[in-house]
Formats: sequence, structure tokens, C-alpha cells
Amino acid sequence: MSNRPLVVTAGEPAGIGPDLCVAIGARPDCPPMQVIGDEALLRARAALLGVDFLLDVIDVPFPVAVECGKPNPANASALLDGLRLAVEGCSSGRFSALVTAPLAKNVICDAGIPFTGHTEFLAELTASPLPVMLLTAGDMRVALASTHLPLRAVPDYITAERLHAVLRVLHRDLQQTFGIADPEIIVCGLNPHAGEGGHLGTEDDSVIAPVVQACRNEGMNLRGPVPADTAFTAAAGHRDAVLAMYHDQGLPVLKYAGFGHAVNVTLGLPIIRTSVDHGTAFDLAGSGKADTGSLWTAIELAQVLGERRG
Amino acid sequence: MSNRPLVVTAGEPAGIGPDLCVAIGARPDCPPMQVIGDEALLRARAALLGVDFLLDVIDVPFPVAVECGKPNPANASALLDGLRLAVEGCSSGRFSALVTAPLAKNVICDAGIPFTGHTEFLAELTASPLPVMLLTAGDMRVALASTHLPLRAVPDYITAERLHAVLRVLHRDLQQTFGIADPEIIVCGLNPHAGEGGHLGTEDDSVIAPVVQACRNEGMNLRGPVPADTAFTAAAGHRDAVLAMYHDQGLPVLKYAGFGHAVNVTLGLPIIRTSVDHGTAFDLAGSGKADTGSLWTAIELAQVLGERRG
Repeated sequence: MSNRPLVVTAGEPAGIGPDLCVAIGARPDCPPMQVIGDEALLRARAALLGVDFLLDVIDVPFPVAVECGKPNPANASALLDGLRLAVEGCSSGRFSALVTAPLAKNVICDAGIPFTGHTEFLAELTASPLPVMLLTAGDMRVALASTHLPLRAVPDYITAERLHAVLRVLHRDLQQTFGIADPEIIVCGLNPHAGEGGHLGTEDDSVIAPVVQACRNEGMNLRGPVPADTAFTAAAGHRDAVLAMYHDQGLPVLKYAGFGHAVNVTLGLPIIRTSVDHGTAFDLAGSGKADTGSLWTAIELAQVLGERRG
Repeated sequence: MSNRPLVVTAGEPAGIGPDLCVAIGARPDCPPMQVIGDEALLRARAALLGVDFLLDVIDVPFPVAVECGKPNPANASALLDGLRLAVEGCSSGRFSALVTAPLAKNVICDAGIPFTGHTEFLAELTASPLPVMLLTAGDMRVALASTHLPLRAVPDYITAERLHAVLRVLHRDLQQTFGIADPEIIVCGLNPHAGEGGHLGTEDDSVIAPVVQACRNEGMNLRGPVPADTAFTAAAGHRDAVLAMYHDQGLPVLKYAGFGHAVNVTLGLPIIRTSVDHGTAFDLAGSGKADTGSLWTAIELAQVLGERRG
């Protein structure tokens, strides 16, 4: 068992990230973890919420005082410094895994910093060419072949090369990170009914089916392309993960099944990173009404995965 | 209470439709219904399955003998005759509602008959300009703004005019067919995160939001565009239906939630029509392994809706 702590970034300070961190830090069953954020802000949030302050903080102070619900781009740079510190600590072996509370992308962009998301930022920091988003909820795991794209950009984005690379990352991380020796993966079709023999689109036959076959030839245990509306049902039988072709094909069912306890895991990185499945919820910051379920589950999963990797 | 029977079409004879009909007909709690199909075939299937034959059949014989699992386009024309008979009986008031067992589109097309699906055929027979597909499972109802289209055709298909018309049909049928006085409808965004303020596509702001506002001005109780990955969760709160923009945005979660008991209801027709949510399952025909859950639920719902319409 690893005796290294987790590292948790407290996220956008005007959102619920600090609330969730202090609430979880006060739990008697909270695993060993260090939280990266502004210590004075975290202490103030704990006092506001009436929670004992028990966090072990790596202090990265914000230049501008923070008011709940009112994000300030002036603090964006310090937020990213905290993330860099967290990644360095994971890469050096000081921490077993990284857990991230939510950021607001547009606040960082408003600071003039080009930023497309946590995942892309972490991939860049770790020189990882292809991060793959996987969400888990209970025993359901859903990975995405494309993530934050306009719907009309999806079909051309799903090339054979990219899909093949995504499947290799997914298969390898199911083995190495999740410890599944011979993972079974269902690959969804792109079109409804997986194209129905070409009547509802050609990509399932021309792109997806050949990639699935090529991956099988490499020894992967795959089924597909499977129509997405049956891929998630019990009738589809055992699978360790479903690969959806795009965001809204996979995440509505995952989040419905997750009941607020879904966790986002970034595959294809040299470090382990889990994350909440929700946003900053500015309207709930400081209210005591934020649900710790997703962050708690992300911390639990990071601990399990971090111990497995050693 | 209506004392008119339901009418059930037994569907593709080489598939599981006949199996399901004879199994349901033998249930002591089977509601009054007439089944349209080939009576000799239905009797033979009951004998094969060891089920008592208790169906009230309107005999529409097939010209060619049927073998389980081996569909024959020579029988396609008789199949459609049966559907016409069923619709005439609903229109004339002889039947309270229509329930359809599955067809195989390609078998009918192979007979040289242009056929895009049950729903479109019924819309044409009843001169209905805009049939809308709604699936129910438990207390979840999901309607679709587009159905059987290649994914890349979806964004241009969802015009303001079409979406407006779909919402009017959905709202009216939730009132008139489902008896919900002031139905609450969640309208999904087209793009992930409902476009995230234009960062992930423009249609949510340029097409969907104005239509939602226009429908609100007509008195409809709508929310949207709501990101699809949260629209179905408990956190989204009460709603009588979710309108998904396309097939694989709405049906994976509905079928996951439905556990084989989802029912398809066609809105926008002058008659009530429910249907199974599965296909012909040629490999299971005659095996006794076909699950009657979806057809039974479709029959139960047709009975409830038929009685409400009187």
C-alpha cells in the first residue's frame, strides 16, 4: 500500500471547490491528502460553513480577495500555478494521484490565458499527446472518442487513426491503471443503429468497423460498432468500458446512472488524475448546499488507482 | 372505460413478433385485443412454443410459408395490408389503439416497396405531417426532434420551424393523450454543454433558445436548451418529458433506464399507436427466449391511453 498522500487542487475559489475540500477534510475517514489552494480562503470558507478546519494545505495565495459566486480573472494565473505544482508533485512521486475540483474555463480565458480545459492543460504539462476522458459511476465506465466539440464537427473528427489511438490508450489504461487483465470494451457506432448497414450513415462501416477489427488483431477484446442505444443496457452483457464516439452519446446515461457520484478519470497521462463530474456551481458557493458526493468519490477512486500503480 | 379492443399487428413473421403475441394472448390478464397476422402461422408458432392459443385473430395470410429467422420479401405486401387494416380500424373507432410488433425495414425495401419505417408509414396513411417519436420507461419520457438520420445530417435538420412544430406536437399530445394539464418539458441542447455560450457550437443560441422562448410565449412550460448530460438526472428536477435533439442523445439513457420495458409512442397521429422498443430478433424467433416485456408494456400503455381518449 502506498503511503504517499493524494494531492487535491481546490479549483475556482469563487465556486464550490473550497467548500467541498473543507467539508471532506473534516471527515474522519478522509484519506491522507494535501490540498493546493489559498489557505486563508480555505480557512475562511470553513468558518463560513461552520466546519472544523483539518486540511493539510500547500498554500498558493490568490492576489485578489475572493467573494463567493464572483470569480475574478486576476486569480487565474495563481490557479494554474497550483495545478503545475500538483503535477510536479505527482511526477516526482511525492503524491500518489491528483484530484481536481472544478475550474471555470471562461474565467481563465478572460484573463487572456488560452485554456481549453483541465484535461488539455494536464496533457500539455505532461507532454501527453492523447488524453482520453473516461467517466465512471458504480460499475459503469464510459470513455469518449471526442469530447468538447460542436456536434457538426464530430463525424470528421473521428478518423481511423484517432480512434485507433484512443482505443490503445483506453485498453492500456484499463489494464495498467484499473488492473483489468483482459478488458472487454464495447465500441459504440457513430450513427443511430450503428448506421444500419449504411442506410443511416457510412462511418460505422468505413471507419469504425475496420479499426475495431485492427484492434482485435492486436489482441484487444472488443465488440462493435454497437448501436449506442443498446450498448449501455444490461442486455449488452459484461463489459469493462463503453467507448462512446462523442460527449452526448455517452454522458447522459453515465450521469443518469451516477446519481451525482460520477468521477472523471483522465487516461493517457503518466500520472493518475481524477476529477468531479460537475462545474463550479457559483450559486452554491458558501451556501453549505454543495453535494460532496462526486469529489468524495473522485478522492476514493484516486486512492485506489494510486495504490494500484504503487 | 372504453370497451373497444386494442389492435395488435404481429409484425415480421420470421421474427419474434408472433412469439410475443401468442405468449401474451395466453396470459389471463391479457386485455381485450385483436391480432392482425397469419392465423395458421400464429397457431403453428404457439404449438412450437408449447403455448395455449387464445388469440382473437384477424387473418391476413402470407402468400409464402414462413421459416423462423428467414424473412421473405414476398410476404412484405401482406404485412403492410395488415397495417392498413389496423389503421382503418382505429380511425373508424373499432379499435381503441394500435400496438405494433417489430418489422424489418430492409425486408420490405427488398420487396421493392419504398419504406422508411412503421412511424413514417402510419403518418402517411393518416395524412399526418409531423409524427414525433416518444419513448417511455417508468416515469421517464423522451421525445426526439430527429430520428433516423446520419449524425452529420442532424444539425441542419434541426431548423427553428421544425423544432417549433415538434414542440407543439409534443405539448399537445402530453395534454391530450397523456392527460397532463400543464406539461413541463426539458429541451436538450444540440451541442455538448448546450454550446457553452457559443464555444461549442452556435445552434443552441441561434436556433433552440429562440424557439424555446417563442413556445413559452405560447404558454408552454419549457426549460432549455439544457445540456443533455444533466437533462436526465434527478438534479434536473421534475419534468414530464425531455426533448432530445437526436436519436443517440436521448435513447441510450431511456433504454438504460427502461430495462427492456421501454415503449415507443408515436405522437402527432390522429390515432394512438404504441410499439416495442426492440427489433425482430430473428435469431430468437421460435426459441421461446424472446422477452415479452416491451410488447406487454406497450399493450398496457395503449390500453391506458386509449381509454383516456375514450
